[in-house]
Parts: sequence; structure tokens; C-alpha cells
Amino acid sequence: MVKIGLLGHGVVGTGVVEVLKNKAEQLVELTGEKIEVKSVLVRHDYDVDYKEKFVYDFDEILNDDEISIVVEAIGGTDPAYRYVKSALEKGKSVVTSNKELVAKHGYELMNIADEKNINFMFEAAVGGAIPVIHGVRNCLKANKVNSIAGILNGTTNYILTKMIDEKQSFDIALKAAQELGYAEADPSADVDGIDTCRKICILADIIYGNHILPEDVHTEGIRNVRIEDVDILKLVGGAVKLLGVAKRTEDDKLFIMTAPHVVFNQGILYAANDVFNAAQLETDNAGLMSFYGRGAGSLPTASAVVNDIVECVCADGTIYPSWADENAKMVADYKTVPYQFYVNVSDDAEKVEEIFPTAEIIHVKGCTAFITEKISENELGEKLSGFTVNSVLRAL
Amino acid sequence: MVKIGLLGHGVVGTGVVEVLKNKAEQLVELTGEKIEVKSVLVRHDYDVDYKEKFVYDFDEILNDDEISIVVEAIGGTDPAYRYVKSALEKGKSVVTSNKELVAKHGYELMNIADEKNINFMFEAAVGGAIPVIHGVRNCLKANKVNSIAGILNGTTNYILTKMIDEKQSFDIALKAAQELGYAEADPSADVDGIDTCRKICILADIIYGNHILPEDVHTEGIRNVRIEDVDILKLVGGAVKLLGVAKRTEDDKLFIMTAPHVVFNQGILYAANDVFNAAQLETDNAGLMSFYGRGAGSLPTASAVVNDIVECVCADGTIYPSWADENAKMVADYKTVPYQFYVNVSDDAEKVEEIFPTAEIIHVKGCTAFITEKISENELGEKLSGFTVNSVLRAL
Repeated sequence: MVKIGLLGHGVVGTGVVEVLKNKAEQLVELTGEKIEVKSVLVRHDYDVDYKEKFVYDFDEILNDDEISIVVEAIGGTDPAYRYVKSALEKGKSVVTSNKELVAKHGYELMNIADEKNINFMFEAAVGGAIPVIHGVRNCLKANKVNSIAGILNGTTNYILTKMIDEKQSFDIALKAAQELGYAEADPSADVDGIDTCRKICILADIIYGNHILPEDVHTEGIRNVRIEDVDILKLVGGAVKLLGVAKRTEDDKLFIMTAPHVVFNQGILYAANDVFNAAQLETDNAGLMSFYGRGAGSLPTASAVVNDIVECVCADGTIYPSWADENAKMVADYKTVPYQFYVNVSDDAEKVEEIFPTAEIIHVKGCTAFITEKISENELGEKLSGFTVNSVLRAL
Repeated sequence: MVKIGLLGHGVVGTGVVEVLKNKAEQLVELTGEKIEVKSVLVRHDYDVDYKEKFVYDFDEILNDDEISIVVEAIGGTDPAYRYVKSALEKGKSVVTSNKELVAKHGYELMNIADEKNINFMFEAAVGGAIPVIHGVRNCLKANKVNSIAGILNGTTNYILTKMIDEKQSFDIALKAAQELGYAEADPSADVDGIDTCRKICILADIIYGNHILPEDVHTEGIRNVRIEDVDILKLVGGAVKLLGVAKRTEDDKLFIMTAPHVVFNQGILYAANDVFNAAQLETDNAGLMSFYGRGAGSLPTASAVVNDIVECVCADGTIYPSWADENAKMVADYKTVPYQFYVNVSDDAEKVEEIFPTAEIIHVKGCTAFITEKISENELGEKLSGFTVNSVLRAL
């Protein structure tokens, strides 16, 4: 019998209870053990048929020697960080879906788990149900990942899909997302790219082996994505998607950022719509590889948490190595790394052809839009100094 | 030091030598062991810089106690089956990319591996570099797979993409594929669906737990896909793809088949073009999940083989359980299972509306095309008896 201490009883927490229940038999078959939630840390009472499991003080879980695995589903870092750290120090493995916690404190928490020969697992923190972390760790042993680009936030992808498919402005699409419960009343963590930034940091930690702090990563959200540009791009088979991207540069630094990008209708990033997430890896031997699925939702997220629980139960000690400590110097200045850009100006096409002779011009009414060759943002800024610029987006 | 005996030195075999070389350092880091090809079974001499490793008699590998892992890259079942079986019986783990071998003899070979407490691995046999087998085995522990649909053959996907994008007929697109080396001179295994059938059988073996013999699975290829239908479907955002599909039916049988299908422009199957492969799983807790990548090619396939080698090296005994023996009775009569169909007739729309009142009619010149509601192929046949039918395709 494996006993779980569950912290938090919201969307993810209730999902974990549900999945452990609806897959009870299958889990016994897989692990040889019955896996049971013994205690649920809540702040106040609810009317559920297992409320005898509710506890109101974390120490009841921490000091319960029967509980070998703690599932953290509170979110945020306070008190989640404190709870998770003390659970690990007590020798309990921890499974979480908390991207903020992992992005900020992953290095330290992985190292405590390593010292204690237990596990700190967080598949559900990136891409929800999509096994991208598992895939990167276990399925690319004969590959180097050259770059990763991901649609890692369902709320913004839903909003952008509405803008693309239904020609809604950002504000109207956001409102629709809020009405459906996809976006919070304060949508900042999603629409300003903060959530995506945390997730691309976690993927970069694992792939590139150094802890990357979100505050060292340039992050743009989608508030300024103009419906005009979405419409123009649609004419040429392009779509605007909020991507987290990470890529080793030629001088062995890490280009990492979160920003709206233009992607074209080849491959998975273009095809991932609505609340779906997708991660695209470019590898040296296997080439392009993608994972696609539900990035959020109670049962999808919980099923990833429970998959991690099974790995913990079956593990003989620490499974995955930690990464190295944070090193801000490894993050490249994003303005110096060559990239393609979509640019919309009020100037005429002749002027664009003169200053950007290799650009691909999209002829549209009332403005001139074009896609540049690879060029750094610094250089682009200089070249655009004589233009009346309406918008600039990165293009993948 | 882990010593490998490599059988075959074609596209996959040379790729395995190359990947083991270009990832030598990384593999030592991951496994703590140097992994080296000791012997390569070839039929005749080649001029490569490791030709001192060539052997011409399988027994030299079989009886070499230093060789603990055999990589089978011959293809076909004779002599591959004999070689693999005797290697396993000798206690050597085997890694293969041979879908014909696994589809025919997987049950027996998995069981020998199990008895000997070693491993028989074949990630590269389905979807090339895409870790779909690994994903199904390791990332869905808290899920049940309700259905799977996959574009599992790059050659036919390339041909269909040419038909869709460039309005080429099947014959012309096949010729282009042959000129590029994507299709064999005798393209039957690809274009008649045989290869896809083997792969969907292997996935079904793992997911549904019984060995499914390819000869028990209804298999249609793409030779009869008409450019007229491809063009009509394009107008309504549909594309024709050769899919292997497997699905548990309501009476707990297995619906499994290989056939060209209409897919619509939502999701990954529609977006997977050219030689790319994609597998889409429908699960109970995680919802829709897809894997996408290179289904063939020397280095992609070899990198999946080497990933399996690493799993073998790190394993402490048999990792994955076998499935149960073949049971032809579990395969449902595909003609009785409800499905949506695309139908093209020379009759007028009124007649369609009368016989198929719920069908979605696509109005096109010179014929009437429509998508039915879910209906069995048997019922469809009866309803179509008074029509002049030009074509019927399944729709996902």
C-alpha cells in the first residue's frame, strides 16, 4: 500500500483523487501496490464523500510516516515551496504540476531529492497531459536537442485561435475565453507570457542542463497582437502563436524567449489550435519531433500527475539527474541572435525592397508587410529607423 | 563495455553504426558503459573503415559470449526470425526495426525474452524515430487508450501529399516517390497498406494486449484513391490519408483496419504531410494525444534503435511485459462497426437527401459527394444499392 498526501483540492487536486479512483485496478496491476490518498490538505471544509481525509495543517502530512509521496497541487510558491522542500527533506517523494515552483526552485528541489535518493517529479507542469518532459528525458538518448519551440499555454492559444478563425480582436477573444473559464479574471499570467516563460525555462533546464531563471528570459505576451496582422498572415498561410523557444547559439549560449511568433502551415505548431498545446523539438539524429495534446484541464493534468506517482512507486531511488545551478551568463542577448521577422509598415514596397532586398513582400491594401531574412533585432531596428512601423513579430 | 552484434548493413544498419559513433560520449555518460559494435553480419564485402568487423556467418555472433545485444536490421522474416529467436534463446537481448518480424512473431519473441529475463525491443518498427511505443507503454499509466489512428507509412503519405498539393494522379505521384527513393521499384508493401497494417497490429498488440495477426486485419491501400475525390475534399478542408486504426468496440472486440481515410483540418493527422508520420491516441483521462516525426530514414530510425539499446543496457531484466497470444475472435467484422463515410455518386442531391437524410452534402460539379453519419459498411452497401457509386472512403 502506497499512501499519498495531497496538498490542495482545486482543479488538479480533485482530478488526482478522481484518477487514482478511476484507475485503481490498473495501478495495482502496474505497480503491485494499492495507491491511496490518505490525507488532503485543505483550507476549509467541502462536502465530498472523502472529507474524513481532510487535514488543515501541513504538519499532519509531513509527520505522517505512512505517507511516502506528497502531491503538491496548491500552485504558486508560498507556501508550496516551503511544503515541498520540507517533504523532500523528510524523505518523501514529491509530484507537482506547479510550473512556477519548478521554474523558480527546480534546481534546489531536484538536488534535495537526489541527496535523499527519492524523486521530485513534474511532468504535468509543462504541457499538461503531453509527455514532453518524459520524452525529452527518455526518448532522445541518441540525440541532441538543437532547439525547442512550444505552444505551452492553452488560454493564449484559444484566444489566438479565435482571432484567426473568427476575426475577433484580442479584447473580444479574451472576454470569450474568460466566459468559458479558460482565462482568469486577471489574465496576466497567461496573456503576458509569464506562464509560457516558466514552462520553456523548465524544458530548457532539462535539455540544456543549467537552471534558467524566468527573470533572465525576455518575455512578450499577446496583448499587442493586432487583428490586422493576423488577417494578413492568414492570406499567406501563416498564423500567430505564442511560443516559448530555446535554442543553443553558435557561441554555445542559450537563446531563450517567450513571444508571439508567426508560424506557417507546415507542421504541428500551425495545426495546434484552441486550448491544445504542442512542443516541437529539432534534434540532430531524429530530425523534427513533436508532441501534441491537452495542456490543461483537471483529468488530463491529473493523469500526468498519476503517471509520475507510478514512476515514483516503481523507482528504486532517484530516477532523473538534476541540472546545474543557474548561470545568467549563459543566456544570450536575444537582440543579437539572427531571426526572421514579420514587419508591417505604412511605407511603400519600393522602400522595403531598397532597404530589405531579400525580404519576402506580402502585398496588402493600405500597408506593406514582409518577412525578413535572418537578422538580429538590433540590426532590424537600425534598418527600420526610416520607416513608419505598424508592427513587428518574430517568425519561426 | 557493451558489445553489439549487428545483423545487416543497409539503411538502418549503417545508421546504427553512425549513431553509436556520433553519440559515443553521450552514451557513456548515460549508461556508464562504452557501447561498441563488435561484429556486423553482412552477405558480402564493402569498403568501409570498420570492415574488419564484418562476419559472414550468423553463428559467429550467436556463439560470441562477449556480445550481449543483437541488433537485427536485415528486414523480412527469413532469416531474421531464425536469427532473432536463437539470439534470444542464447540470452542476448535483441533490438530491431523490423515490423514484419514483430507483427508476425512478436508474441513468441517477447515470451522468450521474458523467460530469459532479457529484452526484445522494437521502437523503430513503428513510426521510425517517433517514440510512440515508448509513450504508450510509459506515459499512459493513468489512462486507457480508447482508440489509435496513425499515419504510419511515409511513402504513401508522400504520395498522397503530392496528390493533394500538386493535383497529381496516384500514378504520377508514385513515380515521383520512386525517383526520390521514397518508394521501391515494387511499391506494393507500401501502397497496398501492408506496411501500415503491420504497424497498427504492433500498436494494437501493446495497447489491447492480444497478438493481432496482420492476415486477420482488413487492409486497403491507396491505389484506388481518385484525384477527383482528393480535389473535392480539399474544398471542404479534408485530406485523404492512409491510416491504420484500432479501436475497442462496444461489445469488447477490436475494430482494426488499414484504409485510406478522410481527415479534416483539425489536429495532427491532417497536418502530417510528406514523409512524416503521426499517431493520434484517444485516451479516457488525458483526452487526445499525438506524436509526430520522421517515420523512416537512416539516422532517425537508427536513433530509435540506439535508444532501445540504451534501455537494454540500463535494464535489470525484462522491462516490458508480453501480450497474450493471438485470438482471431477478438477482431470485429469491420463491416458491422459504425463509421462515417465519404461517398461520391453520379446521382443527384435529392436522391441522396432522400436515402441519407442526415448526410452532409458537398455540392460539386458533375457529381454529388457527401459525408454520412455513423453507419456500418454493410448498411451503407444496402443504402447505396440504387446509386451509381464513383467512390467510397472512410472518414475519421
